[in-house]
Amino acid sequence: MRRVATVLFLFGFTISFPQVVLTADPPVSEATSECIGCHESVTPGIVADWRRSRHSRVTPVEALTAEPLSRRISAASVPGPLAGTVVGCAECHTANPGTHADTFEHNGHPVHIVVSPADCARCHPVERDQYAENMMSRAYGNLKHNALYQDLVGTVNGGQKFSGGLLAQQSHGDVTDAESCFYCHGTEIRVTGKHERNTSMGEMTFPTLSGWPNGGVGRVNPDNTPGSCTSCHTRHQFSIEMARKPYTCAECHKGPDVPAYPVYEVSKHGNIYSTLNKEWDWKAVPWTVGKDFSAPTCAACHASLIVSGEGTVIAGRSHRMNDRSPWRLFGLPYAHPHPISPDTTGIRNKAGLPLPTELTGEPVSASLIDAKEMETRRETMQKICRACHSTSWVNGQAARFEETVKSSNEMTLAATQILMSAWEKGVAKGPAQKDSPFNEPIEKMWVEQWLFYANSTRFASAMAGADYGAFANGRWYLSKNLREMLGLLESGPRAREAAPPLK
Amino acid sequence: MRRVATVLFLFGFTISFPQVVLTADPPVSEATSECIGCHESVTPGIVADWRRSRHSRVTPVEALTAEPLSRRISAASVPGPLAGTVVGCAECHTANPGTHADTFEHNGHPVHIVVSPADCARCHPVERDQYAENMMSRAYGNLKHNALYQDLVGTVNGGQKFSGGLLAQQSHGDVTDAESCFYCHGTEIRVTGKHERNTSMGEMTFPTLSGWPNGGVGRVNPDNTPGSCTSCHTRHQFSIEMARKPYTCAECHKGPDVPAYPVYEVSKHGNIYSTLNKEWDWKAVPWTVGKDFSAPTCAACHASLIVSGEGTVIAGRSHRMNDRSPWRLFGLPYAHPHPISPDTTGIRNKAGLPLPTELTGEPVSASLIDAKEMETRRETMQKICRACHSTSWVNGQAARFEETVKSSNEMTLAATQILMSAWEKGVAKGPAQKDSPFNEPIEKMWVEQWLFYANSTRFASAMAGADYGAFANGRWYLSKNLREMLGLLESGPRAREAAPPLK
Amino acid sequence: MRRVATVLFLFGFTISFPQVVLTADPPVSEATSECIGCHESVTPGIVADWRRSRHSRVTPVEALTAEPLSRRISAASVPGPLAGTVVGCAECHTANPGTHADTFEHNGHPVHIVVSPADCARCHPVERDQYAENMMSRAYGNLKHNALYQDLVGTVNGGQKFSGGLLAQQSHGDVTDAESCFYCHGTEIRVTGKHERNTSMGEMTFPTLSGWPNGGVGRVNPDNTPGSCTSCHTRHQFSIEMARKPYTCAECHKGPDVPAYPVYEVSKHGNIYSTLNKEWDWKAVPWTVGKDFSAPTCAACHASLIVSGEGTVIAGRSHRMNDRSPWRLFGLPYAHPHPISPDTTGIRNKAGLPLPTELTGEPVSASLIDAKEMETRRETMQKICRACHSTSWVNGQAARFEETVKSSNEMTLAATQILMSAWEKGVAKGPAQKDSPFNEPIEKMWVEQWLFYANSTRFASAMAGADYGAFANGRWYLSKNLREMLGLLESGPRAREAAPPLK
Repeated sequence: MRRVATVLFLFGFTISFPQVVLTADPPVSEATSECIGCHESVTPGIVADWRRSRHSRVTPVEALTAEPLSRRISAASVPGPLAGTVVGCAECHTANPGTHADTFEHNGHPVHIVVSPADCARCHPVERDQYAENMMSRAYGNLKHNALYQDLVGTVNGGQKFSGGLLAQQSHGDVTDAESCFYCHGTEIRVTGKHERNTSMGEMTFPTLSGWPNGGVGRVNPDNTPGSCTSCHTRHQFSIEMARKPYTCAECHKGPDVPAYPVYEVSKHGNIYSTLNKEWDWKAVPWTVGKDFSAPTCAACHASLIVSGEGTVIAGRSHRMNDRSPWRLFGLPYAHPHPISPDTTGIRNKAGLPLPTELTGEPVSASLIDAKEMETRRETMQKICRACHSTSWVNGQAARFEETVKSSNEMTLAATQILMSAWEKGVAKGPAQKDSPFNEPIEKMWVEQWLFYANSTRFASAMAGADYGAFANGRWYLSKNLREMLGLLESGPRAREAAPPLK
Repeated sequence: MRRVATVLFLFGFTISFPQVVLTADPPVSEATSECIGCHESVTPGIVADWRRSRHSRVTPVEALTAEPLSRRISAASVPGPLAGTVVGCAECHTANPGTHADTFEHNGHPVHIVVSPADCARCHPVERDQYAENMMSRAYGNLKHNALYQDLVGTVNGGQKFSGGLLAQQSHGDVTDAESCFYCHGTEIRVTGKHERNTSMGEMTFPTLSGWPNGGVGRVNPDNTPGSCTSCHTRHQFSIEMARKPYTCAECHKGPDVPAYPVYEVSKHGNIYSTLNKEWDWKAVPWTVGKDFSAPTCAACHASLIVSGEGTVIAGRSHRMNDRSPWRLFGLPYAHPHPISPDTTGIRNKAGLPLPTELTGEPVSASLIDAKEMETRRETMQKICRACHSTSWVNGQAARFEETVKSSNEMTLAATQILMSAWEKGVAKGPAQKDSPFNEPIEKMWVEQWLFYANSTRFASAMAGADYGAFANGRWYLSKNLREMLGLLESGPRAREAAPPLK
Repeated sequence: MRRVATVLFLFGFTISFPQVVLTADPPVSEATSECIGCHESVTPGIVADWRRSRHSRVTPVEALTAEPLSRRISAASVPGPLAGTVVGCAECHTANPGTHADTFEHNGHPVHIVVSPADCARCHPVERDQYAENMMSRAYGNLKHNALYQDLVGTVNGGQKFSGGLLAQQSHGDVTDAESCFYCHGTEIRVTGKHERNTSMGEMTFPTLSGWPNGGVGRVNPDNTPGSCTSCHTRHQFSIEMARKPYTCAECHKGPDVPAYPVYEVSKHGNIYSTLNKEWDWKAVPWTVGKDFSAPTCAACHASLIVSGEGTVIAGRSHRMNDRSPWRLFGLPYAHPHPISPDTTGIRNKAGLPLPTELTGEPVSASLIDAKEMETRRETMQKICRACHSTSWVNGQAARFEETVKSSNEMTLAATQILMSAWEKGVAKGPAQKDSPFNEPIEKMWVEQWLFYANSTRFASAMAGADYGAFANGRWYLSKNLREMLGLLESGPRAREAAPPLK
């Protein structure tokens, strides 16, 4: 980095954002000191993590002294007792007393296990509010309280018994769901009782939680708040570097259903990141294009506060992740404009299905953002692109992407028409026959068409990760799968269902 | 690295290649200063990239002072005006005036958008010439002007409409092709007109380009030159570290068709790279085995100038990437000796097909390198292997690889025979029935046999990435796919084609 | 790292393990100096590797001076001549004279090519002994000397000829096996003769080896010892950093059969590792949770000596890799308690098959560890978890995992029942029909059910890498594959076998 600094110096390219000066001896609250007294031995890993965190070294009052663009705290002021000490164990795990159902008496302190967005919001209210408008914060309910999606979950997670020449789908338990779909979507955490345990500090009583552990994005916390900040701001270092690097997003965006990470990896941006990121400044706030980083990560395009070397804001920080995206690439089953409300459980298409599009592709417009809002979001994103690319470049890329949204939706339509034909001809049994649309081979191929191949093709287009969108998981399979569905329609076997899959 | 230096010192292991001394105040041309004047604000990211580049700090005249093995410039001399300033915006984007169809008047300068190999060749002529002999530089035409391959492209990229119980393949547009196959192969960039745009600097006129943006290896530029240096030497840092690290190659060599990167990743070499590369010297020229790096990357084996610690040249730099490879692993449909000419559009097999092998596997010898040339290339590669491995080791590995070329070709032959039998029996329609050989399920399985599984098995063998070649994408599927093709031959459905796929 | 050190200092968090002081001028034996004299030129890469190694700088006598927990050598004392010089070429390649069949006279020294665990054991006897109890050390024989597994190997690696409308499986040679299954499992290395070669040092004679090269975990060496230390402690740097980083394990644990690495990658632990590992101390012995590393790698959970910041041992070092794992996740075909003996060739189920479970799932209890031993291993692992996680957290995770072992086994059972029904109905030919259970399409789907999808689901559960276990390679396919097997059972084609596959 010394060399880089020299180069910048040679060209007189310097700019500075007043940062917080760290005090040599940060004040730790008495309560937190008590926690550390035991937990240094009991759970040394997380205490060490916290010591490495900025929370262990800066008090909210100090954090408030930074210039606005450099500030990592969005509250205008912070309540007294919290303000003057660093943010330690007790500051979070005893916050907002009386609101957390998982609070228990722990060595004289009313401690709660699950720190919620409401706790973080005392210093970071803007981020909490934005995130509450982010569809991710509702990922639990949007999946759990949608009968159609629940049917899909059942066909994925439910066991299958073979008996009398037939397969009968078993019910799927919360325990399995919690480590499958809801690991990412978040679980609902409830206190189901309490239990005693003999610890190294003697007999102790703890609340018993269902849905625990979980750090999913749409977790429903014991204080009924939605979301979990630790999904991306991993406890207990709360490292901004982690939130900015793509591995955090990859935890849930790597599989064939939302393959953002594998697409990024083979894009030019991903290549630059992988090669050069060791020289970047991962902690600078704001984040300066070209100076702090040379290629965008997920965060740069979708969330971070980005400025130019001259200090101009290119994009404001946002925790409503789709602020810069006109299209929801994740087709259900077709790509569509983003839903207006983060809670999508109320959406119904004309056929009465809880889907944002018709089965024939038309968007459920009343529930989705309009063309003007799409244009606003597109422009917000493209302003970031143009920090490195000419307008011609950006427009050329955008034109390809719009074409791909269209053509991948058409490939989903063809698959849907084949499926409907299969239901009509009795090759498979669909909803009209009171059967799941997800449990027979041709139905599963249909799911793969939109969930895997159309999604992958669109992600590859959006981020120019062509290698993933051609043979790896995109267009090759979009075509092949259609042809195989047709083959099955013409002569394929039918896997009958012994037990009714819809409850 | 200090520790390493100490160790080397202890054993008296030092060697030095005189390098260029960087001047404190590099001379920037007036034209480039003007560019930066605006673009510092307009596209700050790429200006910052360039400032980090060697181009921003070294003049060609200085570059010429390095000892031959350390020289990063291959011209014997550089024309006057270019020689004495660093290589900035204007030096490339106004180079070779009168030859670039995309030149436009831009604030008083005749600027062209697409920098071509001819521009780079003023300082790097040897690399341009080698690359022009590299099949990669012809990747656009080799794919675009081969009717058979174009048929395959159509079945991958073309839309499909379901109508009357049949699927009809639609035409595939250039826009889709440009973000699929031609993202890597390169597009043909043509000026189709001009347009005005209101910019932050006022109303301006720009050329309108088709096929833009693109950085594919075989791009056809507006000056009609083939190839794009930026594919690997990414603009605008032009970092040799990027060209040497495997992520650059992985942009186009990760998918199941040419899985060089995933194979490398699970090889011992890839493991050493992933673990230790942070301590290597990525910028040293020449690149010294053991001192600068401990395991080869793609570049080390296929392109870079490699020397021993004593300064002996182990391999000369080459931009004709197959100089060290006897076999073309990428089967079309069988692995074969490398084509003699980088332009493969003229190759015809005995059946008249534009393929380097017969459908039954025999190579089209007249168009391919002979056994002697294969032996020369094998020896060039193995000399690199022997910098760390004994001859017995290298020969043992080579024997396995030769066996795999043979056995994977046999597995392609069996698949081809099943396909031919399917065509004969009317289970599918092939060229003799005036139908595409790529559009029906059994045909797509045949494509996967050679394009995915045989290729993957060979790549895994060549680089000893066994994990990828066994169950991940290699031998398991080579066998399974054959058995399933046979199943389909015996009783499988046939997906009929409504519209003629060959235009 | 300086910042971290400061933080630790602020909190008075320091702990020190007396380490060996490196001498400035390490004594190199005369024999090793002779080796280097030529090999510096002949194989410069590996000489440079060795110079970077700890072996080149520490004598065994010095190594013995470290405090017990910091010691990297497990012998109580080391024989005279070896003790006083660093561990160079001759120290290993001429060790244990008279026991290595591959010894040859080389410039006056009796050199053997393949360094074996017996050679390493002169300084590292505890590790050798533990590893000999590790099933991995028997990976060659456990695969090679099990007729059922050999049949599977044949159906994967054997060629297939299409003739008379049928596919006939060809024999698979050792050469192919060596770069497929046995690359990881290890080969048997035998001296088959000797050969002369003209080298840069003149005409020389070398032993001719079969099975060479190989660095597989269960390699059978020319001195008849099992295993190869270099699999993980890669020659010739023998870097503990490599053994601790996950890329080493990924060489053989990335494919869909044992997908430990891809699961780790999308877990929270893998995310923390990928983001922050550049700041960790990869060489510290012992390895301190929180101080040296912030999240476990494969080694941390399965092998390394782990201590708390206060110096308490959390887990002892073990080279018997399953010491901390109750379940063998790798189903054969069902997940089961770990085998008691590392040599599994003697295991027979009630049906007489060489499998650790019945085809209907019951474990072959007499050959497997009992519930008490499982509990011991579980507790050994969970003690590591609890260095960062509460007991509730750990128990919640464990409950999910136990459920997944059960449910994934049930999904294997359903697939097995469908297969048996297929054999009964004549849809496929199984052992009762004197045919391989692995060569027909429905049989291959059955293999994928347990080998790919059930294994993947369990690995994803064990390490909380949900993204891999849902759509990438787990539950989605567990269900889909079953439904497709049923489809094939009802109406599927049968791929007949021309030649008998069982030899």
